[in-house]
Amino acid sequence: MAAYVVGHKNPDTDSIVSAIALADLMTKRGIQAVAAAQGALTPESKFVADKFGLKAPELINDATGKQIMLVDHSDIAQTVENLAKGELLAIVDHHKLGDITTSNPLTMWVWPAGCTCTVIKGMYDFYKIEIPKGIAGGMLCAILSDTVMFKSVTCTDDDKKAVEALAKIAGVKDVMALGMEMFKVKSAVEGASMKDLVHRDYKDFDMSGNKVGIGQLEVVDLSILEPVKAGLLAEIKKMQGEGRHSVFLLLTDIMKEGSEMLIATKDASVVEKAFGVKANGDSVWLKGVMSRKKQVVPPFEKAFGK
Amino acid sequence: MAAYVVGHKNPDTDSIVSAIALADLMTKRGIQAVAAAQGALTPESKFVADKFGLKAPELINDATGKQIMLVDHSDIAQTVENLAKGELLAIVDHHKLGDITTSNPLTMWVWPAGCTCTVIKGMYDFYKIEIPKGIAGGMLCAILSDTVMFKSVTCTDDDKKAVEALAKIAGVKDVMALGMEMFKVKSAVEGASMKDLVHRDYKDFDMSGNKVGIGQLEVVDLSILEPVKAGLLAEIKKMQGEGRHSVFLLLTDIMKEGSEMLIATKDASVVEKAFGVKANGDSVWLKGVMSRKKQVVPPFEKAFGK
Repeated sequence: MAAYVVGHKNPDTDSIVSAIALADLMTKRGIQAVAAAQGALTPESKFVADKFGLKAPELINDATGKQIMLVDHSDIAQTVENLAKGELLAIVDHHKLGDITTSNPLTMWVWPAGCTCTVIKGMYDFYKIEIPKGIAGGMLCAILSDTVMFKSVTCTDDDKKAVEALAKIAGVKDVMALGMEMFKVKSAVEGASMKDLVHRDYKDFDMSGNKVGIGQLEVVDLSILEPVKAGLLAEIKKMQGEGRHSVFLLLTDIMKEGSEMLIATKDASVVEKAFGVKANGDSVWLKGVMSRKKQVVPPFEKAFGK
Repeated sequence: MAAYVVGHKNPDTDSIVSAIALADLMTKRGIQAVAAAQGALTPESKFVADKFGLKAPELINDATGKQIMLVDHSDIAQTVENLAKGELLAIVDHHKLGDITTSNPLTMWVWPAGCTCTVIKGMYDFYKIEIPKGIAGGMLCAILSDTVMFKSVTCTDDDKKAVEALAKIAGVKDVMALGMEMFKVKSAVEGASMKDLVHRDYKDFDMSGNKVGIGQLEVVDLSILEPVKAGLLAEIKKMQGEGRHSVFLLLTDIMKEGSEMLIATKDASVVEKAFGVKANGDSVWLKGVMSRKKQVVPPFEKAFGK
């Protein structure tokens, strides 16, 4: 029986490529493993898979009776159903430590890096296993995506060094050109509904008893979103009306290095409390803000009085 | 501010030496760290520290306002008080994943090996940092202790390879002779009260609503314990009367590779259910049983109907 390697719900490129890479590494170490995912590829992940000839992972949703390895998360809310009814063999991650526990010893590689693929690059080095060319290309893209081409505050030296080494293996000459090509795919909004766009990277948070939703769209140029901005605002206002205190949608311009935040809230003063700037109607420009995890969630938690 | 590296409550040799080794490694990586412990050295740990010139770690019990790295555990019940009021930077361990969580990304190295020092040996290799001679000697002893000189079912190839490499660094020619010397120190019972002996390595478990205590004493020859056996039995009977369903004390003969289990219980049938053998009065010989974690706790949990 092969173990399933699986990333978080709503898989991003890191969750997809990490699963593929860790399955390759573990199998080569003698522990049979196959890549899995909890959902379909995003346009960005599909671009990466096509570019480097990677097969989309098998879909799984339930761990019952399975051997499991997790990548890119360690929270019960983000993982497959019935994890406790399977056997958890490994976790490879770059986030805070979540609430998953096990009843047997396991393998964990967790670093405070910008991307899980950076950690897996370290594992390939440690075990002296060669990284296949296609997988190296995918890992490189995952790191560029998670670190917003090294611009995110979450980016570390380990991420930059990993990209340098992976580019050589994958035969990628111009890393930044590849990154721009990928982010252009990620930026595309044609054919997607407003609901799809808001949920592309969306999470609900509990802030001192208030339900607060925060979504993010990363684009290479904000002008791409001009035609859909009114529709997006209407969509988050609708969501706010369905029992939430607020819904915020970050429209992140990765070239200008800042985010326009669309606002749907019961009380606009939380935005001023969090960022020290007054919202201009339904939106506000947050200069330098690119990371939801590090630059948006903590100030809001403070503003909500946590 | 230096970070404190600390093992579990009632520290054994692995918790002590892991803290010393990880503090050395982290400091050499540029992250200032000092070794700490939640309790005094056992006779075994004192022997190891004296033999290899290692300083006993500083005692700490509370994490408030401190930067913390944990070794050899990831359970709240086993860790320092107020962990959430400090900042947890790292966990290095070889147990099941416990219930500690963090609010920030961290470093974790966890392997299903026989000893935390085996994982730390891997970290020294990965970061290409030389292991000081004295620390190598201590790590070697911790692995011999945790794996009962390679005889425990928890022992892996990684443990054996680590001992081989550490022996070269520490200049230890006869590893098994050193192990015997250490286990003789661990076996000594002179001067210790019955209560001390029972609690040297003792844990209470909740088994389907029943409080069950299981202690273990590892000796090089069971005859060492003959003079204290009656006293130990009286002590566990007293403890059983204080609100426990059962108290079991494993007297493990590491040379004969088995354990005599002393029994104080409300219902002796759990022993037969767990091990398929009838107790001979207050004790039973369990051939091949050396690991509480892997060979005693699981069958009792089954017998108690979990």
